[in-house]
Amino acid sequence: MKNGTDRRTLLASAAAVTGAAMMAPGAALAKTDKLADVKKAIAAGHDASVKRLQDWIALPSIAAENLNYPAGADYMRKLALDAGFQHAEIVPSKGKPGVFATLDAGAKKTLGLYFMYDVKQFVASEWESPPLEGRILDRPGMGKILMGRGAVNQKGPESTVLAALHAMKAAGRKLPVNLVLVAEGEEEIASPNFHEIVTRPHVAEALKKSVGVIIPFAAQNPANGAVTLFLGAKGAIEMEIVVSGEKWGRGPKGDIHSSEKARVDSPPWRLVAALSTLVSPDGNTVMIDGIQDQVRPLTDRERALIAATAAKTDEASTKKQLGVQRWIDDMTWEQSLERLAAVPTINIQGLVSGYTGPGGKTVLPGRAVAKVEMRLVPNMTKEETVAKLRAHLDKRGFTDVEVNVTGGYGPTETPETAALTRAQLATYERFGVETTVYPRIAGSWPGVIFTGPPLNLPAGQFGLGHGSGAHAPNEFFLIESANPKVLGMDDAALAFVDFLYQVAATA
Amino acid sequence: MKNGTDRRTLLASAAAVTGAAMMAPGAALAKTDKLADVKKAIAAGHDASVKRLQDWIALPSIAAENLNYPAGADYMRKLALDAGFQHAEIVPSKGKPGVFATLDAGAKKTLGLYFMYDVKQFVASEWESPPLEGRILDRPGMGKILMGRGAVNQKGPESTVLAALHAMKAAGRKLPVNLVLVAEGEEEIASPNFHEIVTRPHVAEALKKSVGVIIPFAAQNPANGAVTLFLGAKGAIEMEIVVSGEKWGRGPKGDIHSSEKARVDSPPWRLVAALSTLVSPDGNTVMIDGIQDQVRPLTDRERALIAATAAKTDEASTKKQLGVQRWIDDMTWEQSLERLAAVPTINIQGLVSGYTGPGGKTVLPGRAVAKVEMRLVPNMTKEETVAKLRAHLDKRGFTDVEVNVTGGYGPTETPETAALTRAQLATYERFGVETTVYPRIAGSWPGVIFTGPPLNLPAGQFGLGHGSGAHAPNEFFLIESANPKVLGMDDAALAFVDFLYQVAATA
Repeated sequence: MKNGTDRRTLLASAAAVTGAAMMAPGAALAKTDKLADVKKAIAAGHDASVKRLQDWIALPSIAAENLNYPAGADYMRKLALDAGFQHAEIVPSKGKPGVFATLDAGAKKTLGLYFMYDVKQFVASEWESPPLEGRILDRPGMGKILMGRGAVNQKGPESTVLAALHAMKAAGRKLPVNLVLVAEGEEEIASPNFHEIVTRPHVAEALKKSVGVIIPFAAQNPANGAVTLFLGAKGAIEMEIVVSGEKWGRGPKGDIHSSEKARVDSPPWRLVAALSTLVSPDGNTVMIDGIQDQVRPLTDRERALIAATAAKTDEASTKKQLGVQRWIDDMTWEQSLERLAAVPTINIQGLVSGYTGPGGKTVLPGRAVAKVEMRLVPNMTKEETVAKLRAHLDKRGFTDVEVNVTGGYGPTETPETAALTRAQLATYERFGVETTVYPRIAGSWPGVIFTGPPLNLPAGQFGLGHGSGAHAPNEFFLIESANPKVLGMDDAALAFVDFLYQVAATA
Repeated sequence: MKNGTDRRTLLASAAAVTGAAMMAPGAALAKTDKLADVKKAIAAGHDASVKRLQDWIALPSIAAENLNYPAGADYMRKLALDAGFQHAEIVPSKGKPGVFATLDAGAKKTLGLYFMYDVKQFVASEWESPPLEGRILDRPGMGKILMGRGAVNQKGPESTVLAALHAMKAAGRKLPVNLVLVAEGEEEIASPNFHEIVTRPHVAEALKKSVGVIIPFAAQNPANGAVTLFLGAKGAIEMEIVVSGEKWGRGPKGDIHSSEKARVDSPPWRLVAALSTLVSPDGNTVMIDGIQDQVRPLTDRERALIAATAAKTDEASTKKQLGVQRWIDDMTWEQSLERLAAVPTINIQGLVSGYTGPGGKTVLPGRAVAKVEMRLVPNMTKEETVAKLRAHLDKRGFTDVEVNVTGGYGPTETPETAALTRAQLATYERFGVETTVYPRIAGSWPGVIFTGPPLNLPAGQFGLGHGSGAHAPNEFFLIESANPKVLGMDDAALAFVDFLYQVAATA
């Protein structure tokens, strides 16, 4: 997921929860005695489940590199059919194909599942273990992990769901809910075409019958097993802001000798000028005309949820992990968490212009690019935000400055009172997992495709287990846990089965 | 030379001189009948001269890559000894070694020569001919060229001088002037240690006896053979302006997830803020506190020289060559030439921060760098300019913003009335070459090391012949000219011999 890293960061904040009385999973699992046959089937299928994950990791679909398409979609379809979906089809899009699958269990309720079959790019030489092999490694104190690209983001958690479905089949059980699966192969490039897939009439019709949509997740705190349930996420828009002599009609078309600066306009200086209008002088407040008008302040309940999180999480370890000495404006921990949830941001991911190698080179560049991403909060939308940015630049004479949006989506929200949310909390409680409810994660996922119009469904992350390293080298997923508070893959699969029953039972 | 490209650009401006009555070199060379024996010796040595240049090109010294040191200096020393210098020594420096050589001809006058033995980096795959082979190629309409890294910048023109000296020896002639040669191996990294070499007491003492210092040059207009004599050049300072979380104590130390922007300060935004204070909103006027106070306006004579150049040069072809549609502020051609000579500049050569690959990446970078170069006019100095930039940033609270100067020097000026200048003009005239006197080139060379204290000597470029592609692929030097108005290497060597006699004769 796009926000893998920061979600994990946030969760790590919870690592230092102190004094909270927690039931150990071992005790809690007694509640799932009714699932003893399923548990047995999961154990029997363990090796097959691990192999299924390894085989999947060996086929990385990477949209940015146009790697393994449509093979990744075909594979996803096959995984669904193998897991018991009666129907599974490839859904073409303007970009990479999606997959739509249904599992009719004859149940009253239907649960939606969102899978991504693509993974982030990787540089094999940076890994301690080959990123496409999914090797099992011992990690002292943690247990046996499986290392590979996509291990936690998102093939590991998704394979955990598949393992649960295989086990239900093996145990001869009918699922307590019907399933509708939608999968995409462009999550890592910000889901530019997923809306098209989800709003196909027959796909939308199937999803609308569901109580909501879950993306499988595995982010238990590795120390205490705690999880955070996110009621929403910021939206994100990725773009390049480009100044070029070509488009501007001033400055050079290509790089020219730098002494010409005396009489030739400079695209990078124009980029600096345009960028400097977008934020406050400290770079921390979005100053795009009219943007702040769209921002809905936090509700009292949201503030209370954040305060509760602040009280039981540790600032120092978060700062240390981020390599940050001070929050902006020297805010408190609670204020920093509020800002994380409450404010829209505009971030420079990268600057590229002219000569970028070692030392200098006497050029006046013909082009300058800022890679920028905005994060949106309710009630901002992608379309309105892009339009306001364009108008802001135009008003200041930067009509030539290109805003090339490459992907993105608005913020997502699901009510705390939704049946889907309550079913999640029920399973977490039954498994004795310390749970924090958090109003809005600063990272982003395309949940708004489900929670926004036309579907207007609840949607969120669900799952137990652990993994880390999304988007980074040495990404891994926990297979066998050495910590009784953190679930390995088999127990996480059992938790998913439990969740299906909670969904069925929650009014 | 650092300013190879733009010097050639400026010269190309003169390509469209129309209606100017010019003596063809053929006719003019009659004046050098007294040098018939030298001319013969040059012809006899032609193949050896070409081979000397090819062998030199095969040994590229590149300071930025620490390639071929001290081999390049040793080779330079040997070239000097072979050409008739009685004394030649390696001069160590904090950086790469220089070479100091003297040729005592028992003459009354002494001429200083400045050589660079280093060359610019190259990427062999971008060349049509191997850059270290110095192959001879036919170029229709131009003649036979020698292609290789350093061909024109500066080994070709320097080899032309060596060819002249070898021919004088072969003809059994004593030189009409003594020579003092100083060579460096760090010109392409802005001569950071050349001052140290030149101010060694015995080197400085020898140079002080000279009428001035010449760097060999070959920049005849390929169409009409015209040359421009530059009375000066802007200075240049190369630097990196760096914002880092490490130094700032805010923002992240390394790249972190971009959603953290909500609560974490951003080095690239701070770089944008700092940069935007350095120039006017259009990027065209240096706004560093106190910089403009140092600028000496153009004199009436300088304006007149520029106006004369503007009148006989062609704006359209220059704009086309640069890929520029408009000068800043839609200035006229003459205004553009005045600015080129008159104003200090601050140019962004490159911007580098965070993710610079294709597409985007959700990071908040821990570091942001602007590669910047300033060009200085009289009476600015490097030291004062750097101090003013530092003070400007500090005053605005950017005390953590690093200014890492990697090289540079102040502007250089030589009087139009200097004997050295008049000797140059005399040879150009004797060879029937249309000559434009230009007050100050916008490009830079370390002439101030000679023209500034403590030496205070005249210094400039001198030479006939042609070459192009400095710093670029397919750099070449003209060996045999197909255009009677442009001198090949042999005639250019003869012109250098003539110049030595003009120096001897000019009071």
